[in-house]
Amino acid sequence: MKIGVVGLGLIGGSIARAIKQHTNHVVCGVDTNPAVISAAYAAGAIDTDTDVSQCDVVFVCLYPRDCVSYMLNTEFKDNAVIADISGVKRFLAKEVAEPLRKRGLRYVGTHPMAGRETSGFEHSDADLFQNASFIITQDEHTDEDAQALLSQLAKELGFSRITACSARKHDEVIGYTSQLAHVISNAYVKSDAAQEFEGFSAGSFMDLTRVAKLNPQMWSELFIENGDILVAEIDELIGNIKDIRDAVAAKDESRLRGLLKRGSDIKETLSRED
Amino acid sequence: MKIGVVGLGLIGGSIARAIKQHTNHVVCGVDTNPAVISAAYAAGAIDTDTDVSQCDVVFVCLYPRDCVSYMLNTEFKDNAVIADISGVKRFLAKEVAEPLRKRGLRYVGTHPMAGRETSGFEHSDADLFQNASFIITQDEHTDEDAQALLSQLAKELGFSRITACSARKHDEVIGYTSQLAHVISNAYVKSDAAQEFEGFSAGSFMDLTRVAKLNPQMWSELFIENGDILVAEIDELIGNIKDIRDAVAAKDESRLRGLLKRGSDIKETLSRED
Repeated sequence: MKIGVVGLGLIGGSIARAIKQHTNHVVCGVDTNPAVISAAYAAGAIDTDTDVSQCDVVFVCLYPRDCVSYMLNTEFKDNAVIADISGVKRFLAKEVAEPLRKRGLRYVGTHPMAGRETSGFEHSDADLFQNASFIITQDEHTDEDAQALLSQLAKELGFSRITACSARKHDEVIGYTSQLAHVISNAYVKSDAAQEFEGFSAGSFMDLTRVAKLNPQMWSELFIENGDILVAEIDELIGNIKDIRDAVAAKDESRLRGLLKRGSDIKETLSRED
Repeated sequence: MKIGVVGLGLIGGSIARAIKQHTNHVVCGVDTNPAVISAAYAAGAIDTDTDVSQCDVVFVCLYPRDCVSYMLNTEFKDNAVIADISGVKRFLAKEVAEPLRKRGLRYVGTHPMAGRETSGFEHSDADLFQNASFIITQDEHTDEDAQALLSQLAKELGFSRITACSARKHDEVIGYTSQLAHVISNAYVKSDAAQEFEGFSAGSFMDLTRVAKLNPQMWSELFIENGDILVAEIDELIGNIKDIRDAVAAKDESRLRGLLKRGSDIKETLSRED
């Protein structure tokens, strides 16, 4: 089968490399940067770079809005499976699912849950997806064969867990577990006190700020396209922080103990479910 | 030298075990629970349990308020070095430094920066302090010999970094790097969405909630006794989160990019300094 990979950044480059490394499929790579195409050929990550319109499956690995624009304006093979890999799924489904279906194409939303703190083809890795989760988003129109084909392919690329859910469920879970974590981390490092802890250990600070370094362009787009869910989560978080803050400010120790115990109990329950 | 350890919980128990394991000093252990004293004898962690008034150095390893009360109401040997090990240092210094000095005792604040998610003597460990930081807080009255003696002892117990600073500096750094991290973690797990991420990977969520499980009694006391600094840090954090929230809600992508870039840049600078 011929598989197109559009956008050979960290994720696209890793998909291309993983297909070449772990399967016998042919890879057609597309990138606007000729130097990246050269590097991809040199790395053995792609076989061709011109015939995306002949591909049976196409992964469009661009930022969400570029992805929409590319999908709506590119000629694909009849009945091809067209997948995005972005971190917001309702936005993609809303913009492309119906137009592609009307063109006889099979859109499936996917989210390979892997990443690095670095970006670009030079950091891509055929083994980036080993033991990672692969999310497939679906609605009543999603083609079952296309979904099965992508599940199978994901396993071959190294993913150990394939989860199917609605685009809304994806956006809710990711809005909370990933996007909100990035908001917190990015806000937390901004205190002046972050410059002052030399000589102290700071294990909890390091844990909480691991994801503070991020790609501002990409995350801005992800946050805004998932804005309704993310803003609601932020507001709930601020409310929960303020409850603790107000109990501390009022020196209301009994209330504070109760608030801390509730969070601690929830964490303990979640840990047991790991 | 005879060293007293009062309160044989996780930290006190570990100090007692570490002294016995790594030095030739004699340990006098004190605990209100006779079962703990028996366990400490059985573990070889203490040599005696009745003569704290004969000790040259006493570590009082109790919650902050109990620590104050114990120090003010216990008979110690003339010129003994009396150390607390708690996570708030201005409060301790304010309550005990002068009264102890007037009694001819040498108070030094310390903070062994090590911990576990579990508490109690049964989880104590002679090697808990290996490669950890040991903070000593000082003011113009702090006895230099007492400080040097504790530094040397800390090295023998396994600490790899000894840092001396004012109680205020300690409380500021700990309020931000540790207390605020615990507030955030404990608030973050409370969203309903925390129950829903099965099948998704949640690396950033796990990082951010590692310290959500905590001892509510101890942390309530620490938060309230460091309330002025902690509340100011919480307010700054909420402001920084709200900036991001408002940019997302307004779909102001340029402003959002700028906010995220600033956090990301700060984190990158800190990482380079590691």
